[in-house]
Amino acid sequence: MNEKLTHFDSEGQARMVDVSQKGETDREASACGTITVSPAVMQAIREGSAAKGDVLGCARIAGIMALKRTDELIPLCHSLPLSGCSITFSFPEDGVSVKAVCTVRTHGRTGVEMEALTGVSTALLTIYDMCKALDKRMVIGDIHLVRKSGGKSGDFYFDEHERAE
Amino acid sequence: MNEKLTHFDSEGQARMVDVSQKGETDREASACGTITVSPAVMQAIREGSAAKGDVLGCARIAGIMALKRTDELIPLCHSLPLSGCSITFSFPEDGVSVKAVCTVRTHGRTGVEMEALTGVSTALLTIYDMCKALDKRMVIGDIHLVRKSGGKSGDFYFDEHERAE
Amino acid sequence: MNEKLTHFDSEGQARMVDVSQKGETDREASACGTITVSPAVMQAIREGSAAKGDVLGCARIAGIMALKRTDELIPLCHSLPLSGCSITFSFPEDGVSVKAVCTVRTHGRTGVEMEALTGVSTALLTIYDMCKALDKRMVIGDIHLVRKSGGKSGDFYFDEHERAE
Amino acid sequence: MNEKLTHFDSEGQARMVDVSQKGETDREASACGTITVSPAVMQAIREGSAAKGDVLGCARIAGIMALKRTDELIPLCHSLPLSGCSITFSFPEDGVSVKAVCTVRTHGRTGVEMEALTGVSTALLTIYDMCKALDKRMVIGDIHLVRKSGGKSGDFYFDEHERAE
Amino acid sequence: MNEKLTHFDSEGQARMVDVSQKGETDREASACGTITVSPAVMQAIREGSAAKGDVLGCARIAGIMALKRTDELIPLCHSLPLSGCSITFSFPEDGVSVKAVCTVRTHGRTGVEMEALTGVSTALLTIYDMCKALDKRMVIGDIHLVRKSGGKSGDFYFDEHERAE
Amino acid sequence: MNEKLTHFDSEGQARMVDVSQKGETDREASACGTITVSPAVMQAIREGSAAKGDVLGCARIAGIMALKRTDELIPLCHSLPLSGCSITFSFPEDGVSVKAVCTVRTHGRTGVEMEALTGVSTALLTIYDMCKALDKRMVIGDIHLVRKSGGKSGDFYFDEHERAE
Repeated sequence: MNEKLTHFDSEGQARMVDVSQKGETDREASACGTITVSPAVMQAIREGSAAKGDVLGCARIAGIMALKRTDELIPLCHSLPLSGCSITFSFPEDGVSVKAVCTVRTHGRTGVEMEALTGVSTALLTIYDMCKALDKRMVIGDIHLVRKSGGKSGDFYFDEHERAE
Repeated sequence: MNEKLTHFDSEGQARMVDVSQKGETDREASACGTITVSPAVMQAIREGSAAKGDVLGCARIAGIMALKRTDELIPLCHSLPLSGCSITFSFPEDGVSVKAVCTVRTHGRTGVEMEALTGVSTALLTIYDMCKALDKRMVIGDIHLVRKSGGKSGDFYFDEHERAE
Repeated sequence: MNEKLTHFDSEGQARMVDVSQKGETDREASACGTITVSPAVMQAIREGSAAKGDVLGCARIAGIMALKRTDELIPLCHSLPLSGCSITFSFPEDGVSVKAVCTVRTHGRTGVEMEALTGVSTALLTIYDMCKALDKRMVIGDIHLVRKSGGKSGDFYFDEHERAE
Repeated sequence: MNEKLTHFDSEGQARMVDVSQKGETDREASACGTITVSPAVMQAIREGSAAKGDVLGCARIAGIMALKRTDELIPLCHSLPLSGCSITFSFPEDGVSVKAVCTVRTHGRTGVEMEALTGVSTALLTIYDMCKALDKRMVIGDIHLVRKSGGKSGDFYFDEHERAE
Repeated sequence: MNEKLTHFDSEGQARMVDVSQKGETDREASACGTITVSPAVMQAIREGSAAKGDVLGCARIAGIMALKRTDELIPLCHSLPLSGCSITFSFPEDGVSVKAVCTVRTHGRTGVEMEALTGVSTALLTIYDMCKALDKRMVIGDIHLVRKSGGKSGDFYFDEHERAE
Repeated sequence: MNEKLTHFDSEGQARMVDVSQKGETDREASACGTITVSPAVMQAIREGSAAKGDVLGCARIAGIMALKRTDELIPLCHSLPLSGCSITFSFPEDGVSVKAVCTVRTHGRTGVEMEALTGVSTALLTIYDMCKALDKRMVIGDIHLVRKSGGKSGDFYFDEHERAE
């Protein structure tokens, strides 16, 4: 484990880390998150996918557009030309939530974890926005990196038993 | 409770809701969220506030800058001239998390819930980015609206006992 | 008819026109445009609306998001808080084109013609992008203002018999 | 001809196509379009080029700046570092229109058709904006790809006799 | 003279100042700055205004477009709908510099000093960019607020004899 | 010395220079600038670094975020994926000014001078914004390129004795 916050120099001043010595490799990252909603919202989202207003379709586009601008939102993120990305939604068994998974790929000198996390967050915020006339008590949570491959630090898989806590 | 998704017209087509008949009033919204981190990250954040790299200061600026662009991120959000905003951080008793609260004010025709939620989300994502060299298992969660005032729909307070679930 | 290009001063230097003496009124503008496509694309778009990929839904979101940023794209456009907007699509009888109509409303000191035109243009460009794997010979055309109301210069209706030509 | 809309996966969900397996090659695309204007506007544009307000100079800058942000406007477009671009204007013999041609080059994994089309569209919209005090009946049209080279799908030339129709 | 940095709260945390209690008034600000150039650059700029490439026309557009986005660049700046703005250039008697003056107007709750300063800075940076193939030793300087009117703090004029120093 | 303004073609029309034939090399550029402030502002900045509001920390973040968007601000600048960047501040002996130095690195086909200059300018403008409640007479100046390496035109060092003048 790296012992320091690499986004700061030895005097504690923020900087964009120099990656010019890192190799250009294929890199991929996936992140996920959920939004817990009321039954009325859940029904609206499920029906909407069919005919009356496609909440998830809008949220997917919003997430994709936002993750392409991750470097504008997260101060010390590098700008990266992405190779591709996708956002998928599913309905966990609890019956009261929507889960989003965002996967991003690049061929570059640094990873795309932040892009995947930004895609998930913005997609979930968009669901909130589109459903808030029905319910304002929705809760967004469990946003974390799922896995990451490529790059010198090796692959990473989020192990449910090793959550930061 | 409103019975429909106002962001869609009668044929299910997305639109930006017409607010021209709503009055211009003072409106305020607060949202919150947390990031759960490892002890090493927690120590880095706490020390950083003092001398070795101000993670929370960066996250606050990132959140404020992002919330000013909420209308660019959330497809059907209105653009609003904001009167003011702030983001504060605290350390819950669990000892393994940072809590962010974002408050936004406007004098306008529609509320600023999405601005507050976007500010919180981006601040927490920035903490993730700045600390991910130490730990990639951080989890962002419990993002929700705390309260909201102004506008015709009346005031709103998030009641812990009535969470959408 | 105004005799001069108001976006330039008396020495021919570009400027953002001063509207501080104009009254804040409700203003609305509609613009339209079409994209001519091949039968294969037409079929894909019509089917997609149902099940296999919602081209028009994506295009609508793209148009709405772009028109909110008209002031960033058109150099001398004012920034305006919009009250609402919508984009609708229809299929003209020629059977080989999609027509987009964008309507934008504001309560402000200057009109929203450029917002409506930008919404239409971006929606049609997005259709092009999403269908270009099928056909690259699509043509975007007939983009013009349809009507405009509010403001001192009076209402405007585009009369097909008086096209600029 | 490709049989499907590549911007959707097998379930009809929008995505940014994965181009990581495509080679980095020199790519170029040109697009064109026209704006039909009244005689008064035509005179203003022609004179302006000389001394009283350079409409086309502004429109060129606007088009170039917009095409650099194509990925922010078109939801599923890739971000690409461009090698160069230009926009030129000419006056067709009909005497009532201005034609814009935009050429864009990159060394990358995907083409720059959308960049060229976005450059043309924004340049023409800017002409509209700068001349609309003189005439609101201008019509933007005939926007299409002219040619495209580089990449696996081979070169493309727009053949006037094979327009999509 | 105000005794504190209003952009921080009592605990030193950055915030966007709350202006909701300030009145909406007409406000105007002008800022200026200069770029010192070599004789070759000066000649190119002067000739360009005529025929061979309009450096100052490009710089003016760049400045106007940037100042409309001041709130995206300066972290704690409010977003303001501007009423109008202009940038003019002149050639001081020293014969080796170009002076830019930017004036911005709004009807709002806070001033537009930062917009005027951002317009000047970006216009001068654009001159640098467009001429740097001729000379990289250009120096941008003397950027300051010239005057400011409207708002409770009263009018301000920059007095050459009272420069901060 | 190059004899012409490369940002214009032979007819004086602005363009983004074609760099597709230039090699991808490691490139670095540093720029600097100063802001002259009153004693009260100087005291606030120095104290703030410690405890009461970190003006320089905010300015650093603002500068880094702005320089990543240089291509959006400077019309004919190329978009470049940056390898890293930093902004440092120091206090010259005159006791009334803050000096900013910004260094930017890339591996690409064109230099990053404009990124470094944009970073410096925005950082200094942010200092102005955060301190303007104390003093509006601050002056930003002496913004210039310090050095530049990589690329065919060779290394460049700003020689104080050869300033453009």
